[in-house]
Amino acid sequence: MKITPLHHIPMRPEFRSPFSAGYIVEGGRLLFFSGCGPVPIYHTHPHDPVEERRWLDGSFRDQCERTFDNMRIILSAAGADWSSVLKLNIYLTDMTHQNTLNEISAANFGRDNPPARTLVMVPELAHRRMLLEIEGVVALPAAAKS
Amino acid sequence: MKITPLHHIPMRPEFRSPFSAGYIVEGGRLLFFSGCGPVPIYHTHPHDPVEERRWLDGSFRDQCERTFDNMRIILSAAGADWSSVLKLNIYLTDMTHQNTLNEISAANFGRDNPPARTLVMVPELAHRRMLLEIEGVVALPAAAKS
Amino acid sequence: MKITPLHHIPMRPEFRSPFSAGYIVEGGRLLFFSGCGPVPIYHTHPHDPVEERRWLDGSFRDQCERTFDNMRIILSAAGADWSSVLKLNIYLTDMTHQNTLNEISAANFGRDNPPARTLVMVPELAHRRMLLEIEGVVALPAAAKS
Repeated sequence: MKITPLHHIPMRPEFRSPFSAGYIVEGGRLLFFSGCGPVPIYHTHPHDPVEERRWLDGSFRDQCERTFDNMRIILSAAGADWSSVLKLNIYLTDMTHQNTLNEISAANFGRDNPPARTLVMVPELAHRRMLLEIEGVVALPAAAKS
Repeated sequence: MKITPLHHIPMRPEFRSPFSAGYIVEGGRLLFFSGCGPVPIYHTHPHDPVEERRWLDGSFRDQCERTFDNMRIILSAAGADWSSVLKLNIYLTDMTHQNTLNEISAANFGRDNPPARTLVMVPELAHRRMLLEIEGVVALPAAAKS
Repeated sequence: MKITPLHHIPMRPEFRSPFSAGYIVEGGRLLFFSGCGPVPIYHTHPHDPVEERRWLDGSFRDQCERTFDNMRIILSAAGADWSSVLKLNIYLTDMTHQNTLNEISAANFGRDNPPARTLVMVPELAHRRMLLEIEGVVALPAAAKS
């Protein structure tokens, strides 16, 4: 498996770009992971309003850090880490949170070759009061002997 | 081609989780399919308001079942079935429909290893009165002799 | 690398379909590129309101053409062209722009085998007054000697 960040021009440090222009992958395995938020990845359906209230306490920063914790749990279960992430799709219910998101993202992904990324606002997520959701594609080393 | 659902913890039956935490694929081919709704996959552009009115009749349940029918048509054209679906992105214009969606999803994908998934609300889709759209990534067996 | 458009039925010319039902890829490399808009791909974070005002001038058509220019820059940096694009996700802040989008899309991708596509409306993108964002997945020929 080989992954390569794509920079159409050098990423100048003063840009503090939270994303690379693209990411290229060859060989190995791909992991598509589900949209993660601050709630436990597996939880009761239909949603339990009492659990939801407890889980969705706190500021955007709290929710964002718990979302990154959940992504870390998934990466770790797949034997991967932050450096294997090719692409993220991030959904915010309020775009004014983007700078906090970018700060937490940089703390995890660093500044040099962060994943490719799309960031959009949506009016609502699957849990009311959930402020963000992040899904992604990850490269893993080959497992099969072929 | 080998696909493996990723569960970071066992999916307890009482969760009735409509998604797996992730899906891993190795080898074979990947199919990226277009966002499907209850309207015929190929249709006139610009959209014909008379056709749209006819197609977008009915409840969310009707629209959701026709959307799954359209996904089945695409899977079938590619020689695949529900078990080959790695990831879905689902867009609802009203999040109160999520339990109906999850019920129809479980009827097609089962409860054990449903695809990875992201579910978000959007204010509008390409057809006014279209209540959902679903796109996805699918694993197919290798075709080329290599 | 082999890519094949998937048409579940023939795409009749009068449909002027801006998307193929799906796209299948086998072998080679995959490029996941970041959401592109009319602003320079790499830019200062937090966003500079003065730069933003200058970049986000103009009509939807202007913004859309600059967005396609940015996608062309990324494709070109990866050694690819329009014919290598498998899938696009397009986010519009106003769905009434979809016919202009489809016209510009057809001018670049042609009418026969455009990429698979999902098109949704979102209330806001990362830059206020940015009217669209497009991300995608691209197939590239194998690079590694394996």
